[in-house]
Amino acid sequence: MESSAAMGNMFTAGERLAKRFGAENVYNFSIGNPNVPAPASVRKALVRIAGETPEVELHSYTPPVGLPEVRKAIAEHDREEFGVDLSEKNIFITAGAAAGLNAVFLTLLDEGDEVIVPSPYFGEYQSYCNSVGAVLVEAPVDQETFQLDVQEIRKAITRKTKIVLINTPNNPTGVIYNEEVLRDLADVLNDKNNDLGIDITLVSDEPYRDLAYAGAKVPFIPKFYDNTIIIYSFSKSLSLPGERIGYVTVPDTIHDFKDVAAAMGTANRVLFVNAPSIIQRVVAECIDEKCDVEYYARNRDTIYEGLREIGYECAVPEGAFYLWMKSPIEDETVFVEKAEDYGIIMAPGSGFKGPGYVRLSYCVDHETIVKALPKFKELFEDIKAGV
Amino acid sequence: MESSAAMGNMFTAGERLAKRFGAENVYNFSIGNPNVPAPASVRKALVRIAGETPEVELHSYTPPVGLPEVRKAIAEHDREEFGVDLSEKNIFITAGAAAGLNAVFLTLLDEGDEVIVPSPYFGEYQSYCNSVGAVLVEAPVDQETFQLDVQEIRKAITRKTKIVLINTPNNPTGVIYNEEVLRDLADVLNDKNNDLGIDITLVSDEPYRDLAYAGAKVPFIPKFYDNTIIIYSFSKSLSLPGERIGYVTVPDTIHDFKDVAAAMGTANRVLFVNAPSIIQRVVAECIDEKCDVEYYARNRDTIYEGLREIGYECAVPEGAFYLWMKSPIEDETVFVEKAEDYGIIMAPGSGFKGPGYVRLSYCVDHETIVKALPKFKELFEDIKAGV
Repeated sequence: MESSAAMGNMFTAGERLAKRFGAENVYNFSIGNPNVPAPASVRKALVRIAGETPEVELHSYTPPVGLPEVRKAIAEHDREEFGVDLSEKNIFITAGAAAGLNAVFLTLLDEGDEVIVPSPYFGEYQSYCNSVGAVLVEAPVDQETFQLDVQEIRKAITRKTKIVLINTPNNPTGVIYNEEVLRDLADVLNDKNNDLGIDITLVSDEPYRDLAYAGAKVPFIPKFYDNTIIIYSFSKSLSLPGERIGYVTVPDTIHDFKDVAAAMGTANRVLFVNAPSIIQRVVAECIDEKCDVEYYARNRDTIYEGLREIGYECAVPEGAFYLWMKSPIEDETVFVEKAEDYGIIMAPGSGFKGPGYVRLSYCVDHETIVKALPKFKELFEDIKAGV
Repeated sequence: MESSAAMGNMFTAGERLAKRFGAENVYNFSIGNPNVPAPASVRKALVRIAGETPEVELHSYTPPVGLPEVRKAIAEHDREEFGVDLSEKNIFITAGAAAGLNAVFLTLLDEGDEVIVPSPYFGEYQSYCNSVGAVLVEAPVDQETFQLDVQEIRKAITRKTKIVLINTPNNPTGVIYNEEVLRDLADVLNDKNNDLGIDITLVSDEPYRDLAYAGAKVPFIPKFYDNTIIIYSFSKSLSLPGERIGYVTVPDTIHDFKDVAAAMGTANRVLFVNAPSIIQRVVAECIDEKCDVEYYARNRDTIYEGLREIGYECAVPEGAFYLWMKSPIEDETVFVEKAEDYGIIMAPGSGFKGPGYVRLSYCVDHETIVKALPKFKELFEDIKAGV
């Protein structure tokens, strides 16, 4: 999900370029919203549930942490998927991942606490920190692989560190953190916990978990570090971003499970009361479904291979629907502006605290990518030629 | 909406009494959730919208402040209803009234700011203050009429006062603040603004606005005091509490309209991203509809007249679905406990900072009231006889 300020600007760029070149000659890679429809089973479930469920039952408040049968369906699905012990009590249904993160922050953070975030990162994390008075501390990722740089994280940890917040598959880089780097991260966190007498919670924001390509898989992170909370959303896997439905997994291994679980219930109640009642029922019924992930996979192959062939340097996009590309001009905002002359819209990396790079969202019509590649080539050649 | 801790207790009491007396002999007046179904037009709109709208359009993110056409439909409805100038830009759609209040608090309050709340009050207000680090300051209402006591509010105002938060029709008292008292309130606020060089925002939380009985009407408060923000929810008027849909009205008269409007957009985005997309469309289509308010009106007449006839002292219930009754035993928790022996469940006033009173929710089957009244009579007579 984009920051709406950024989205606002991008919409404006889209309109401006459409006027200049005609809408069919605009290649907008700046908007991170699913363009693949929800699976047909979603509509079917929605119409049936909306048509058949008695009104009062259908539209009543649910418990703040979600309907028991929906929590159970999710727990059973994830237990099987990850081969771990999870039940209803570990699952807290929230109004999307943003709501989940806000609830976790309200649960764990006090004014002045520090949250370490590998950079580049999704800009809204700063707002979530602000809203609870926490301090966001950046820890740059490895500049070759865009995997976590655990030594940077180690350096950033202080006595005030409460949370390390990672996002995998990553927005904006498209990278999935691998088992090796997660094991290293766990070692660093355990070391620092011992050294400083603190107890860091690892929070893994995974709204793109089911968009993973070429056999890549997002590991179940509590296997590496006990004190981990996972945040998930159905926005991408079921293409339901506007309906606000996701969940937080608080595994049994979390320290002080009972306290955290109780506080999550309170935070969720205070902030959102409950995730929308109808949609809770729909996702329970469609828990084994996915949107057409192959569509994104095909887009990913075409854009990544196409851009590399031209000569652009890109991070290997393993998941989500983002490509992180090095700007061939040092100041990437100049590059983004120049690209507009070719009808291309991209998000400058500075918005993600990753200057020198641009983010391309490939949740677009495949045809847009195919038609854009020659334009990217022209742009690249003109830059190299100093035009 | 009840605090879930309280609700948890009440569910337990319900189960305990059902075991003791049989479910048909339990009279549960503790749960403030609509029992009247959504109007038939809601189901019709929902099924049609769910069945016909293209998936991507239906389920996409909406702007954080809501779909433009939905904001417009609401503005048009309220313009006509209140005879005031309102347009799309004044309406901010939120995930229910709780979300609206959280967004307003995040917009207006800083750590340490004071929020004056007439007591008794809905207990969650304390949590909303806590979550932004604001301080809730109580100002008792008039103990005869349960109207605002503006002198108490005057006394409570300091240089740190940022918001006076009123709730009309009131939970728990059922009282609607009348024009006279609102005019007096405006005078006090204007006086104090001048004296102290401050600029208090009046926030009126009106989720029960359309549940008003015997010709009572909730005045449009910005008519009395310019700097007023209104919070509304469709939870009660359309019986959709679980779907999380409401809106905040920021009238043109608000001081610094542009800044407040921009900040509301930001707050909403940070907290909730947007209110659920499908339900936004449904309420726009059903904007002129109401649930069967007459059902509540009949309940209100039966319970109020019945209890008064027995000898209980009650505030005149003008709106919402609550009755505020003086406990015939000084410590109302003793009264609540004793009432359980008669199969009656009520909410103790202490939970609303109104000790010595109980709150009865009459959003129950009419039959429950009819059957409960003889039990209330027995209870009253036993107490008077010292049994």
